[in-house]
Amino acid sequence: MKKLVKKRQLVRRRSKKSGLPPGTLVHLGEKKVEHVRISFIDYDEQNIQEKQVSKIEECFPLKATPTVSWINIDGLHEVEILEKLGKQFELHPLMLEDILNTDQRPKHEDFDKNIFIVLRMLSFDEETQAIESEQISIVLGENYVISFQERIGDVFDPIRERIRNAKGRIRKMGPDYLMYSLIDAIVDNYFVILEKLGDKIEAMEDELVGDPTQKTLKQIHYLKREMIYLRRSVWPLRELISGMERSESSLIKESTDAYLRDLYDHTIQVIDTVENFRDMVSGMLDTYLSSLSNRMNSIMKVLTIIATIFIPLTFVAGIYGMNFENMPELKWRWGYAGVWLVMLIVAGVMIVYFKRKKWL
Amino acid sequence: MKKLVKKRQLVRRRSKKSGLPPGTLVHLGEKKVEHVRISFIDYDEQNIQEKQVSKIEECFPLKATPTVSWINIDGLHEVEILEKLGKQFELHPLMLEDILNTDQRPKHEDFDKNIFIVLRMLSFDEETQAIESEQISIVLGENYVISFQERIGDVFDPIRERIRNAKGRIRKMGPDYLMYSLIDAIVDNYFVILEKLGDKIEAMEDELVGDPTQKTLKQIHYLKREMIYLRRSVWPLRELISGMERSESSLIKESTDAYLRDLYDHTIQVIDTVENFRDMVSGMLDTYLSSLSNRMNSIMKVLTIIATIFIPLTFVAGIYGMNFENMPELKWRWGYAGVWLVMLIVAGVMIVYFKRKKWL
Amino acid sequence: MKKLVKKRQLVRRRSKKSGLPPGTLVHLGEKKVEHVRISFIDYDEQNIQEKQVSKIEECFPLKATPTVSWINIDGLHEVEILEKLGKQFELHPLMLEDILNTDQRPKHEDFDKNIFIVLRMLSFDEETQAIESEQISIVLGENYVISFQERIGDVFDPIRERIRNAKGRIRKMGPDYLMYSLIDAIVDNYFVILEKLGDKIEAMEDELVGDPTQKTLKQIHYLKREMIYLRRSVWPLRELISGMERSESSLIKESTDAYLRDLYDHTIQVIDTVENFRDMVSGMLDTYLSSLSNRMNSIMKVLTIIATIFIPLTFVAGIYGMNFENMPELKWRWGYAGVWLVMLIVAGVMIVYFKRKKWL
Amino acid sequence: MKKLVKKRQLVRRRSKKSGLPPGTLVHLGEKKVEHVRISFIDYDEQNIQEKQVSKIEECFPLKATPTVSWINIDGLHEVEILEKLGKQFELHPLMLEDILNTDQRPKHEDFDKNIFIVLRMLSFDEETQAIESEQISIVLGENYVISFQERIGDVFDPIRERIRNAKGRIRKMGPDYLMYSLIDAIVDNYFVILEKLGDKIEAMEDELVGDPTQKTLKQIHYLKREMIYLRRSVWPLRELISGMERSESSLIKESTDAYLRDLYDHTIQVIDTVENFRDMVSGMLDTYLSSLSNRMNSIMKVLTIIATIFIPLTFVAGIYGMNFENMPELKWRWGYAGVWLVMLIVAGVMIVYFKRKKWL
Amino acid sequence: MKKLVKKRQLVRRRSKKSGLPPGTLVHLGEKKVEHVRISFIDYDEQNIQEKQVSKIEECFPLKATPTVSWINIDGLHEVEILEKLGKQFELHPLMLEDILNTDQRPKHEDFDKNIFIVLRMLSFDEETQAIESEQISIVLGENYVISFQERIGDVFDPIRERIRNAKGRIRKMGPDYLMYSLIDAIVDNYFVILEKLGDKIEAMEDELVGDPTQKTLKQIHYLKREMIYLRRSVWPLRELISGMERSESSLIKESTDAYLRDLYDHTIQVIDTVENFRDMVSGMLDTYLSSLSNRMNSIMKVLTIIATIFIPLTFVAGIYGMNFENMPELKWRWGYAGVWLVMLIVAGVMIVYFKRKKWL
Repeated sequence: MKKLVKKRQLVRRRSKKSGLPPGTLVHLGEKKVEHVRISFIDYDEQNIQEKQVSKIEECFPLKATPTVSWINIDGLHEVEILEKLGKQFELHPLMLEDILNTDQRPKHEDFDKNIFIVLRMLSFDEETQAIESEQISIVLGENYVISFQERIGDVFDPIRERIRNAKGRIRKMGPDYLMYSLIDAIVDNYFVILEKLGDKIEAMEDELVGDPTQKTLKQIHYLKREMIYLRRSVWPLRELISGMERSESSLIKESTDAYLRDLYDHTIQVIDTVENFRDMVSGMLDTYLSSLSNRMNSIMKVLTIIATIFIPLTFVAGIYGMNFENMPELKWRWGYAGVWLVMLIVAGVMIVYFKRKKWL
Repeated sequence: MKKLVKKRQLVRRRSKKSGLPPGTLVHLGEKKVEHVRISFIDYDEQNIQEKQVSKIEECFPLKATPTVSWINIDGLHEVEILEKLGKQFELHPLMLEDILNTDQRPKHEDFDKNIFIVLRMLSFDEETQAIESEQISIVLGENYVISFQERIGDVFDPIRERIRNAKGRIRKMGPDYLMYSLIDAIVDNYFVILEKLGDKIEAMEDELVGDPTQKTLKQIHYLKREMIYLRRSVWPLRELISGMERSESSLIKESTDAYLRDLYDHTIQVIDTVENFRDMVSGMLDTYLSSLSNRMNSIMKVLTIIATIFIPLTFVAGIYGMNFENMPELKWRWGYAGVWLVMLIVAGVMIVYFKRKKWL
Repeated sequence: MKKLVKKRQLVRRRSKKSGLPPGTLVHLGEKKVEHVRISFIDYDEQNIQEKQVSKIEECFPLKATPTVSWINIDGLHEVEILEKLGKQFELHPLMLEDILNTDQRPKHEDFDKNIFIVLRMLSFDEETQAIESEQISIVLGENYVISFQERIGDVFDPIRERIRNAKGRIRKMGPDYLMYSLIDAIVDNYFVILEKLGDKIEAMEDELVGDPTQKTLKQIHYLKREMIYLRRSVWPLRELISGMERSESSLIKESTDAYLRDLYDHTIQVIDTVENFRDMVSGMLDTYLSSLSNRMNSIMKVLTIIATIFIPLTFVAGIYGMNFENMPELKWRWGYAGVWLVMLIVAGVMIVYFKRKKWL
Repeated sequence: MKKLVKKRQLVRRRSKKSGLPPGTLVHLGEKKVEHVRISFIDYDEQNIQEKQVSKIEECFPLKATPTVSWINIDGLHEVEILEKLGKQFELHPLMLEDILNTDQRPKHEDFDKNIFIVLRMLSFDEETQAIESEQISIVLGENYVISFQERIGDVFDPIRERIRNAKGRIRKMGPDYLMYSLIDAIVDNYFVILEKLGDKIEAMEDELVGDPTQKTLKQIHYLKREMIYLRRSVWPLRELISGMERSESSLIKESTDAYLRDLYDHTIQVIDTVENFRDMVSGMLDTYLSSLSNRMNSIMKVLTIIATIFIPLTFVAGIYGMNFENMPELKWRWGYAGVWLVMLIVAGVMIVYFKRKKWL
Repeated sequence: MKKLVKKRQLVRRRSKKSGLPPGTLVHLGEKKVEHVRISFIDYDEQNIQEKQVSKIEECFPLKATPTVSWINIDGLHEVEILEKLGKQFELHPLMLEDILNTDQRPKHEDFDKNIFIVLRMLSFDEETQAIESEQISIVLGENYVISFQERIGDVFDPIRERIRNAKGRIRKMGPDYLMYSLIDAIVDNYFVILEKLGDKIEAMEDELVGDPTQKTLKQIHYLKREMIYLRRSVWPLRELISGMERSESSLIKESTDAYLRDLYDHTIQVIDTVENFRDMVSGMLDTYLSSLSNRMNSIMKVLTIIATIFIPLTFVAGIYGMNFENMPELKWRWGYAGVWLVMLIVAGVMIVYFKRKKWL
C-alpha cells in the first residue's frame, strides 16, 4: 500500500504553495537526495568532455560554445542553483516553477529561446513491488540540453554510453536529437514497467478465476490505482510529442522529425497497452463477484444435499421414537429393518435426484 | 446530509424567477451576510489606498483614475447597490442578472468595455465536514476589477498582502494581472479541498475493503454527490480560462498570457484529480457489493459446517432413540460406545472434507 | 405508470402515416382540445390590440401591418386552418407537416421568409405525479410570430402580462425578441419541472438506502424512463439555440444575440441538471442491489445464529434419548444436570463467537 | 431464436468469396426467391407505362427515353442479369459486387454517371416474432432509378399507387424525387418495426419487475441481439442521407434538398428511438438480477422463519426425550403442560421479532 | 490459454531493445522459421517470371526493370538480408526497424520513394483453437512491392494464382494494385476468423443461458482477451486505409482509389463485427452472474421446501418422544393415527403454499 501514501502526498503538495505569487520558486515535493549533483557532457563529432561539477557556475561557459552540452542536475531542493541557472540561460520564471513543482502533468511548451518539456520517469521497485515515479524536466536551447531529475539514478546510461563511444548517430546530431534520445529512453523504459505490470495482472487473473480471497480484493484495488496513475503519466505524452512534431520552433531540425514520428508510434503503443490493462483490471471486480457467487453456490449445494438427505430421515427416526402406547409397527418383527429399508430408499432417491441435477 | 439540502435549493432557486423578463435584477440565493460590505484597494507601482466604504457612490471616482482599482463587494441582497454600480460602470443588465443569480455555471464573457467571469469559490467546513461553495463574479474593466462575493471571507488575503507589501510583480502589472491573481488563488484553493476529499476517499476505501456497514453505503452516496457537484464547478473552468486566453479583447495584455497558460495547466490538474476521485468513488459501490458477498460467504460457511456435521449425527442418535422392540444393537455391550465411535468418525470425515475445501 | 402508455403511443403515431406522400397534412397525435382556439396580440411601442377570433382569416391582415403580431393557435386537429394559414403566410408544406406531427425532435430551421422552431413544453401533473409534455411550434416572420400548441394552457401568461403592461423592454423590441421570450419562458419552466423531479429523486434515495421494497424497483424504472424522455426533449435544445445564434437570417437582429447567449447558458444548465439526475438514477439500481444484499446478510445471520446454537444442542439431547441398555451416564446422579451444563457452555461459546464476529 | 441462425450466416457469407479478385460477381446470400422478377414503371406527368418483363433486355430502351423509369428487380441469384444490366447502364463492377453481396453496411456512393445507395428494408414476421431484413440497392441515373431486392414483397406499394394515380407531386418530379420516396418509405416502415419492438420491450419490463423466469433471460438476450442488429442497420443511414444532401452530383436537384432534410430528421428520430430502446434493454439484465435477489430474499425469509421457530422447539422436545433416570420435571404434574407453555412463548417471541423486522 | 503466453511476450519483446539507439536493426520476436525464404514474381501484361532465390542479391536487378516485381521474404531473423535490401532499395532505417520489430501497431507511412505499411495477418489454429497472428510489412516502390512475413504460409495464394493465370485485371495494373490486392486478401481473411469466433460466441451464449460452469468463466475471459487483441489489430486498419486513400504520393494511381474505397468499406464491416462481438462478450459476465443467481435460487428452493416441510414434522414427532409421565395423548387409542393425520395436514398445507408461490 505504499502507493496509497504517495497518492495522498500527490494532492497535498500543491496546497503548501497556495497563496504565493506565481513564479515563486519553492520546491514542492520530497527531498529525495542528500546533495544536489551537477554534471555535464559536452561533445561534438570529434571531441567529448564529461565532468561532475560542484558549483553550477562551472556550467555557464557551456552556453556560448558551439558544441552540444548536456547539463544534468539530480536533486531539486537547492532553489538557488535553479535561480542562477535560470538567470544565465534565460529560463522563464514559470518554467523554473514547473521544474520545482514535482507533480506536473507531462507537457511541452515553446518559449522564445528554448523548448521546455516535463514528463515522468517510472521505475519498478522490486522490493516493495511498487512503481516509483520521478519528474524529469528537459530544457532544449540553441546548443544545450538541461535535464532536471528528482534523484540520482536514471535510464539514460545507454545514451551516455553511446555518446562516449560515438555509437549510432548521436555524436553527429544536434541537441534536439539528444533531447529526443532522452525522451525515447524514458518511453522505452515504460515497456519494462508494463511487462512487470502485465505479469502481475496475469497472475491476478489466474488467481481470480481460481481461488480469490479477501486479499485479492485489496490487490485489485491496488492495481486499479496503479492504472489510474499510469494513465495520468502516459496519456499527456501523446499530446506532448505531437506538439513537438508540429512545433514551428527552429530548435527542432527537420531531420529529427522522422524520429519524433517513431517516438509517437511508441507512445501510442504504450497508451494502447495501458488501456488494455485498464480494461482487464476493471473487469476483475466483476469476475471476483462471479467467483464469489460460484463458491456460494457450491457451499449451498453441500448444505442442501446434507440437509435434504438427513432431515427427512431424522423425521422418520423421530416418528418411531414417539412413546404412543398403541404403535403397532414397533412390535412387528421386521419393523426396525423395514425402517432402515425405507430410509435407504429415501436417501437413494435423493442422491439420484441430486445426480440428475448435477449437484454431485 | 447537509449537502442534500443544498442540492435541493440549487435547483429550486431558478424557479422563483420563472416568468420575469430577462435582465430583471432579483437576488436568487440565500442571504449569507447581514450587511453588504464594500471595500476597495486602489494602487499603482508607487501608491496604495485601501478603504472600506459605506456607500457605493464613494467608489465611483475610481473609474476615472489611471491607477488599478479593485472594488470588492461582499453580499448581494441589496439589489440597488448593483443597479447604481451597473449604471456607473456601464455593466450589461444580463451581466448584473448573472451576478445576482448565484447558481451560475462558471463562464467567461467578453463585453465591449469589460470582461465578465463567474466561478465558484469552495471552502471546507471542518465542523460539518462538508464542502461550502460561494459564487464569485469578477468584472475586468479598463483600469478596474470589481469582484462580487456572496459572503464575507475569501481566499484573497494573500493577494491583498502582496499588494500592500508590493511583493511579487503585482504592483507593476495592470488589472488583468490582478484578475488572473484572483482566479489563480481560487484554483489554488481547490487543491486544498481536493486534499481533504482525498483523505476521505482513502479512509473510505480502507473501510470498504475491511468492514463495511450500512452507514458506509450512505457515505458512498454522499461522496458521489460531492463529486457530481465538484465536477460541475470545475469542468467549465477549463473552457473559461482557455476562453480568456483566446480572447481578442484589448483588456488582457499579452504579458498576462503566459500566466493564463500556467493557470490553464493547474485547472487541467484539478480536473484530472476530480476525475480520478470520481473513478474511485464510482468503483466503491462494486467493492461494497463484493465485500457483502464475501461476508455472506463466510456466514454461509459457518452455517454449513455446523449443519453438515451435526445433522447426520442427530440422525444417528435419532435411530437409536426409536422404540422398536426388536433392535439388537441396543442390547449389545459395546453398542453405545460403537455409536459414539461412528459419530466421531463421521464428524472427523466432515472436518477433513472442510479442511480440504479450505472452509476451515 | 401513465408515462408507459404515453411512451407506446409516441412510437405508434408515426406509423399511422407510413406510406403517405411527404407534405401530406395529417394530424398525428392525440386530440387534446375540443375546439381549436385562435387568438392574437398585435402591438408596437404605443398601441396594443388583443383578440380571440373564430376564423383564421381574421388574422390574415396582420401579415401586412408593421406592428408585431403574435398569433397563437391552441389545438391542431383542424387541418384546414393550418392549410389556409400556410397559404397566406407562405409556410413550407414540410413545416406544416412538422407542426401537425406532434412527436418532433426539437429543432430549428431557416426558411427564406421565416424561421421555424419546434420544442417541447413540459408541465407537471400534480395528480398523476407525471410529467406532461406538449409540442410547441413557433414561426418567426418579418413582423409576426405564430405559435402552435396542442392544447389550451401554457407558460406564456407572464409574457402576455409584460406585453399588456409594457413592462420590460418587450414592447420596444421586434418579433425576434418575442420569439426569444417564448423560448425563454419554456426553458425557465424546465427548472420548475426539474425541482419536482429533484424532490422525487431525493425521496427515492433516502428510501433506497433505508428500506427498499419491490415497489421501489418499479419507481426506479419509472424515473429512468422520465429521464430518457427528458433528455430527449432537452438535449436538442442546445443545438436549436446555438443554431439560432449562428443563423445568418436577417429576421434575428443583432440586439437579440446577447439574450440568445443568455438563453443558451440556461439551456446548458438544464442539460447539466438532467445529466446529474440521470447519473443519480442510474446509480440507484446498484444501490438497490446493495441494500438487498445487505438485508440478505442480516436474514442469513439470524438463521445461522439460531441453527448454529440449537443444532448441536439438539444433537446432545438426541444422544441421551437413545435407548441403549448400557448407557452409564443415564444412571449418574448428576447426569441430567451435567448435560444442561454442557449445553449452556456450548451455547455460551457460540454466543461469544458471534459477538466477536460482530453478528450480534 | 431464428435470428441466431441468421447472425451466424451473416458473418459466414463473406468468407465464401475470400480470395476471389475484387469485382467478381458472386451472389453472397440466401436465394430467397425462385425466379428473378423484373418489372418497370415508366412515367412522366402525362403518361405512364407499367410492365413485368421476362428478359432484362426489354428494359434497355428505357435508358434513352426522357421519361422517369423505375426498374425493379426481385431476386439476385441470376448473376448474368446483373452483368447485362451493368454493361448497358454503365454500372461500376464494384457497385454490382456490392449489390450481390447482401450483407452491405448502408452507404451512399457517388459515381460519375450515377448515385448508388444500399440500405436495409426491415419487416416483422408475425409468425416467428422476428425482424426480417432484406438488402435494397438503389441506383439513380440521369432519368432512371433501378432498385434491387432480395425477394418479392416490399414497402413500395403506396409509392406505386401514387405514381399510378398521379397523387402528390411524384409525377411532376424527376428520378431523384423517386429515389427519395423509396428511401422515405423504407425509413417510415422502421417506425412500424419500432412499435412492435416497443410493445415487446414494454411487456418484458412488466414481466421483469413482476415475475421473471429463466425464459426471461433468454428473451433479454434475444432483444439485445435485435438491438445490435437494428443499430447496425440504422446508424449508417444518418451518414448516408447527409451524404446525399451534401452531394454535389447534378443528379440530385435542389428542389429535393428540403425533402432530404426532412428525411434526415426522421432518421435521427429512428436512431433516437433505437438508442432509447437499447438503454432500456441493457438495463434489463440489472433489473433481472435485482428481481432474482428479491426473490432469494423472500425464499430465505421463509426458510429462516420456519427454522428459527421450530429448531429451538425441537431442542426443547429433545431435552425431555432424554432417558436420564433422574429428571424431576418428567414427574411433575404440570410438566408436560409447562413445556407446551414454554414452547408457545418461544414461538410467540419469535413471531413478534419477525413482525418487527417486517418479515411477516 | 495459449494466447495468455503470447500476450506476455507481446509486452516483453520491446524491453529487449530498451536502450539501443533508434534505427538499430534487431529482430524482436520469435524466430518462427528455420531459414529465410526469398522469392519473387516479376510480371507485366505479357510476361511472367517466378523464382525462389537463395541470395537476396539476385533480386536487386528487379529494381531497374519496368515490370511489376513482387519480392516476398518469409522469416526475419537474418538481419543482414534486410540491411542489404535496405541499402539497394533505399529503405529508411526506421522502416527496417519497424519491419523487424514484430509487434507494430498497423500503420501507413509515406516516404519519399516508397510507401510503407504494416498490418497483421491472422490465422486460426484448428488444433489449439487459438487465433495466430503474424506481422506483414509491405513496401510499395516505383515498380516493385516487397512483402515481409514472419513465417512461411500466407493468404496470398489466390493472388499468386491470379497473376500466373492473368485472371482478373491484376496483370494489367501497376504495383499499387498489387499492394491493394495483398491488403484485400488479408482483410478478406479476417472474415474467416470472425466466423470462427462468431461460432464460439454463439456456443458460449447457449451454454451461458443453459448451464454455465466454472470453466465457462475461464472461457469468457479467454474470449475477452481475444477481443482485446482483435480490436487492437483491426481498429488501426481504418486509419491505415483512409491514410492511403488520402495519400498524395504519386505511387498510388487514381484508378486504384475506387478499390481502396471498397477496401475501406470492408474494414468498417470488420470493425463493426468486432465491436458487436465485443458487446456480446462483455455482456456475458452479467449473464453468467444472472445464471448463477438463478441456480442459487433453485438450490435454495429445494432446501427451503425440504426443511420447511420436515422441520415442523420432526418437532411434532419430538413432542411425543418426550418422557413425561403425564402425557394423556400417548394413551389415547387413536393418538398415533391422529399424529399422522396432523403431520399429513401440515405437509399438505406447506405443499399447497409452495405451489401457490410457484416453487414447485
